[in-house]
Amino acid sequence: MTADLRSAHVCIIGLGLMGGSLGMALRAGHACASVTGSDRVAETRAQAIALGSVDSAFPDARDAVRQADLVILATPVRAIVRLLGELAPAFRAGAIVMDLGSVKSPIVAAMAGLPPDVQPIGGHPMCGKERAGLAAADPGLFRNAVFCLAPLERTSAETLAVARDLVAAVGARSLVIESRRHDRLVAVSSHLPYLVAAALTATAGETAAGDDLLWMVTASGFRDTSRLAGSDVDMMMDILLTNSNNVASAARRAAQRLAALADAIAGVDEERLRSTLAATQQTWQEQRSRREP
Amino acid sequence: MTADLRSAHVCIIGLGLMGGSLGMALRAGHACASVTGSDRVAETRAQAIALGSVDSAFPDARDAVRQADLVILATPVRAIVRLLGELAPAFRAGAIVMDLGSVKSPIVAAMAGLPPDVQPIGGHPMCGKERAGLAAADPGLFRNAVFCLAPLERTSAETLAVARDLVAAVGARSLVIESRRHDRLVAVSSHLPYLVAAALTATAGETAAGDDLLWMVTASGFRDTSRLAGSDVDMMMDILLTNSNNVASAARRAAQRLAALADAIAGVDEERLRSTLAATQQTWQEQRSRREP
Repeated sequence: MTADLRSAHVCIIGLGLMGGSLGMALRAGHACASVTGSDRVAETRAQAIALGSVDSAFPDARDAVRQADLVILATPVRAIVRLLGELAPAFRAGAIVMDLGSVKSPIVAAMAGLPPDVQPIGGHPMCGKERAGLAAADPGLFRNAVFCLAPLERTSAETLAVARDLVAAVGARSLVIESRRHDRLVAVSSHLPYLVAAALTATAGETAAGDDLLWMVTASGFRDTSRLAGSDVDMMMDILLTNSNNVASAARRAAQRLAALADAIAGVDEERLRSTLAATQQTWQEQRSRREP
Repeated sequence: MTADLRSAHVCIIGLGLMGGSLGMALRAGHACASVTGSDRVAETRAQAIALGSVDSAFPDARDAVRQADLVILATPVRAIVRLLGELAPAFRAGAIVMDLGSVKSPIVAAMAGLPPDVQPIGGHPMCGKERAGLAAADPGLFRNAVFCLAPLERTSAETLAVARDLVAAVGARSLVIESRRHDRLVAVSSHLPYLVAAALTATAGETAAGDDLLWMVTASGFRDTSRLAGSDVDMMMDILLTNSNNVASAARRAAQRLAALADAIAGVDEERLRSTLAATQQTWQEQRSRREP
């Protein structure tokens, strides 16, 4: 392809929350020449056209990608890895192949096996909703989000530039990052919050089973801290199990910290408790100032 | 006093976020005859008058409570317990003595030692902000919040009725609950979310110390789940240490659940992970439907 998003025919495989939102954002901004899509579910294909996510949609992903200059795989991580193998013969020469998966190492490893005339690059927009599916799609989903880009050694400067243009076109900010580093960091910043919310919610559920007045005495603190426990289970299983070493390590470290806090409280170790909580509050203030400069 | 909030002279001891907001809400709604207050800090007293939290303010709490029909102790829990002893001789005969403390058992135990001509009742509005202090006060703070009321055996029906009137006057909903039951439940619904947020934030801080790109890849999930880690440390120390057995038990249970999730992920035990996360998601959906019927 010419290294120009505006003249590119874009194809999105998987018309859920992320793929559907990306199509809406690209089409609303007239950022590219056309957006075609593919989804296994006929109803989703019809809905994607009706909602303005795509110009047209194919049942078979191979038919969708054949003429595309820029293919974006927007399915769960394990499906992306599978699709990279299945679609490899169908990509046209010079096509850019990108993805929106939440874990990058297994995808970038699979991308390394693509034919040499295809240009791969990993992508991960740092945004989402608890509700999965096209019905929750929103062209503003990416606005002000960080959008990670994980180039391979073989990724050309032109391909990276097109990817950056796409990120800018949907209102997000590019962050170029190596895939393993990405996965190590999001295990803590993105996957651990889900597990922590789940542990809190499960503990509350156990308490509520013995005394259902519990739900009457929850307020905004519980609501916000537990919010992610409502996330789609299939989506989270896919993420946790494709980043299992990093996630398990992060969860063990957090569990140890929580147990240490319990010990300090049970032992009424005021000194230790105060220094731990004060240092944590300072960390929280620092990260907030990083996020909101 | 006559069992009538409208004709009552109310006195608020401690003009921080909770006390200051309560005074604003009562005065804005013309819910009582007058609101006097007391705070150790001269600047806070002046600010409380300027912001409309109180009609007048005394440096010495004993002077403030002497003529009050309804005294509301709005300091941290341990200060409330101390004040109940110090102010006991100053309360006028027939006065209602209430509090806004986050933990109820130690306060209700101290209230049991008040002179027999004083009417005690424990109170705890389930709302707050991370920012403590009068500057964050807001007359709408209590709107739609659950306001726990913990009567003692000696608390009369008239006193409970006045307390219910006060709760309604600030826009909150009364929940009458025994103090030990309250403390067991809020350990899970309110104090555990803080500890979970702190464990998450500390783990992220440790990761960021090795790779400060971490804060670039945090999104709304981390932000909401970690929000409570910014809470005032003195306030949280007071709460955690006056409810230590319940809180330590809740934190240990949550730490065990988090470690069990780590084990299931590390062992790629897909079956166990899915059933745990699906049950947790269902608990989350149930509690949400309880909160938002």
